Amino acid sequence: MQQILSLNDILKLDKIKRINLVNSLSGFKSANLIGTTSKIKKENLAIFSSVIHVGSDPPLLGFLVRPNKPVRHTYTNIKQTGIFTINHVCSKTFNDAHHTSAKYPEDISEFEKTNLTPEYNKSFLAPFVKESSIKIGLSFKEEHKISSNNTIFVVGQIELIILNKKLEKDGFIDLTENNTATINGLSGYSFPKNIERKPYQRPK
Amino acid sequence: MQQILSLNDILKLDKIKRINLVNSLSGFKSANLIGTTSKIKKENLAIFSSVIHVGSDPPLLGFLVRPNKPVRHTYTNIKQTGIFTINHVCSKTFNDAHHTSAKYPEDISEFEKTNLTPEYNKSFLAPFVKESSIKIGLSFKEEHKISSNNTIFVVGQIELIILNKKLEKDGFIDLTENNTATINGLSGYSFPKNIERKPYQRPK
Repeated sequence: MQQILSLNDILKLDKIKRINLVNSLSGFKSANLIGTTSKIKKENLAIFSSVIHVGSDPPLLGFLVRPNKPVRHTYTNIKQTGIFTINHVCSKTFNDAHHTSAKYPEDISEFEKTNLTPEYNKSFLAPFVKESSIKIGLSFKEEHKISSNNTIFVVGQIELIILNKKLEKDGFIDLTENNTATINGLSGYSFPKNIERKPYQRPK
Repeated sequence: MQQILSLNDILKLDKIKRINLVNSLSGFKSANLIGTTSKIKKENLAIFSSVIHVGSDPPLLGFLVRPNKPVRHTYTNIKQTGIFTINHVCSKTFNDAHHTSAKYPEDISEFEKTNLTPEYNKSFLAPFVKESSIKIGLSFKEEHKISSNNTIFVVGQIELIILNKKLEKDGFIDLTENNTATINGLSGYSFPKNIERKPYQRPK
């Protein structure tokens, strides 16, 4: 049975139902852990489902943060230190990764509360997640305040990529080989299989 | 064998290899068709892998456009008409959806060149994709120019949701039941199965 909802219908839904619905509507989301440290070197790790590709020359990724929430260590740390890491969530780590969404106070690191391990690369001062097989170090480039709801779109430049295997000839990384997770809504995890690659399209 | 690439290493890669690599790094992407019309009512349809959830109250989605490319009908049409649709790509439509990435001139609609069918809801003047079972009508809210690479992050407010089945009690839409696609890099399509839903997390 078809169902049509207007903006008014959506606004009248109870909060949990509206959050679950709207979070399902963008389609499958990326699953990444963002690692940061505060200026007093306290580590923080948080799961994000909003990381997107912004460009490849220069190499840029972006993500959305909600700084109006009581807990916003990721954003504060990025602004203080200028750097952060993005680490793929995979089948082995998704339980711990999801747990980083719990609201811990600033003096407790999510690394202490999970089996995820901070790992440093000598040239880069934000913590990577040792258990991730695709790890990216970024520098803060710019931010844009979304005035409609006071969220912030953050753009970072890729400074370092750490891969657990050698890059294929054409640069494509088959994320299914890495068991990279995808997120459905706020709470659903899946591990896609059987990638079908399509050729570059020209008008027919 | 581990591989570490610095920003310099990435910039020195040949263009195709760099594009494939950086497009794989954000993780799995959403797969959506954005439908628009020009002010002279010429329809346009284009696939986007950058749609993300921006907020649920008000309900907002955002996506990134590259207006510096020769073909940019989606952005121009949104600015002219103030509205657009987002339609999930699924297993039945992904071949045609991927073909919309071919660069057609302004006077040719991708609806004419594929088996995708424009569908209108009386209250909304941008075309939905009939074959999509999750269709969203949005109004333009705000845009932010990413100065690092001249792309634009566009935010729209959800005005209308058209679902092929009745909404579940808690609002969650299991995207695997809909065979919604996810995109790996620029060219890889997969259809996730077996969603595992995790509970809301509290500190332990």
